[in-house]
Amino acid sequence: MSHLLTDRTKVRRIPDRGKYQEHELFEILDSSFLCHIAFCEANDLPVLIPTAYGHDKGFLYIHGATTSRMIKRLEEGAPLCFCVTIVDALVLARSAFHHSLNYRSVIVFGTAEKVEGEEKNRGLKIISDQILKGRWEEARPPNKKELKATTVLKIQVIEGSAKVRTGPPKDDAEDYSLDTWAGILPLRQQPGKPVDDPTLLKPIPLPDSVLNFLKNG
Amino acid sequence: MSHLLTDRTKVRRIPDRGKYQEHELFEILDSSFLCHIAFCEANDLPVLIPTAYGHDKGFLYIHGATTSRMIKRLEEGAPLCFCVTIVDALVLARSAFHHSLNYRSVIVFGTAEKVEGEEKNRGLKIISDQILKGRWEEARPPNKKELKATTVLKIQVIEGSAKVRTGPPKDDAEDYSLDTWAGILPLRQQPGKPVDDPTLLKPIPLPDSVLNFLKNG
Repeated sequence: MSHLLTDRTKVRRIPDRGKYQEHELFEILDSSFLCHIAFCEANDLPVLIPTAYGHDKGFLYIHGATTSRMIKRLEEGAPLCFCVTIVDALVLARSAFHHSLNYRSVIVFGTAEKVEGEEKNRGLKIISDQILKGRWEEARPPNKKELKATTVLKIQVIEGSAKVRTGPPKDDAEDYSLDTWAGILPLRQQPGKPVDDPTLLKPIPLPDSVLNFLKNG
Repeated sequence: MSHLLTDRTKVRRIPDRGKYQEHELFEILDSSFLCHIAFCEANDLPVLIPTAYGHDKGFLYIHGATTSRMIKRLEEGAPLCFCVTIVDALVLARSAFHHSLNYRSVIVFGTAEKVEGEEKNRGLKIISDQILKGRWEEARPPNKKELKATTVLKIQVIEGSAKVRTGPPKDDAEDYSLDTWAGILPLRQQPGKPVDDPTLLKPIPLPDSVLNFLKNG
């Protein structure tokens, strides 16, 4: 067991789905770009916000407008819960009760820290790379004014866990003789056909970032 | 403006992306089956859990093991924040700063209420229908023991908002002359080829629920 396991991160429901090794979490954190972040306001009121993130060797980066409520609260050091969830399949059992999803999720508990200077630039590139590798180099870099309007926060992955379900359905012994089809229906987020910005001033071929994504997913 | 708009649900960052009409929220709530739910534990510690849900005319249903931490906390009436997020496209602008996502998200603030008897069955069917329409009728219904092990909670959509971005990137005026390709890359969750449970005792054709999903998405 690595240090990511604490009393709070232990998976209690179906404990054999719990994973606590850094590399197990990191692999999932590298496989999405959308997270949800929760924090509490006064009187135990939870607030939950979806946002893009990037992961680099145990550090999560998020960004937002300097004026955003979430950014301000997290910058103050509010405890946060960070979650990434990837659904891989519908799991269709013979009984309604044993229906499930194949999924990979990671929860991280912690706090965020504002980063500045070189690390701020690097954090923005990490977020951009995670959404679309290579796009950062194609786009005009942020200028001083844009950087000033943006806060970049870093969350170190110290306390967390992953929960993973894979494989076929598991039914009760007496249900295997039913005539009901059972199996899994894989789901995957896939790209469609890129759409040119209608304001392109002349035909411009698709950039490498998009071509590579279409080729390799 | 409908009654879903409150001081807490008002979209402050890029306010023209905010939607507060019931039908605008309901349409998004009908378009996914995965939500994230946040609640607070003692000392302002937020907890965030991904789970399946179903939506029926302003009521959200979730379920879980009677013994699950989230179910127990929500059953006690802990304030919750419910969030559904659908990513529709990467928005690739000429400047790094104006990169974005096209998305539809809904936030609901509220509390959950345990449902029993007929409504409990109905809640389970609503969740099942939202994941895969028609599967409920194909599968063995829950028995007494299974129902006893499961809690179904209902959340009324009273206070919430949606945030939606659509359309092409928006760049700064002086960037439109750059040679950088700009546009959107649509993303969509799509089904793969269904996989038979290896324990099927004989060949069983794919059920209507799966066939319809493959046909109509």
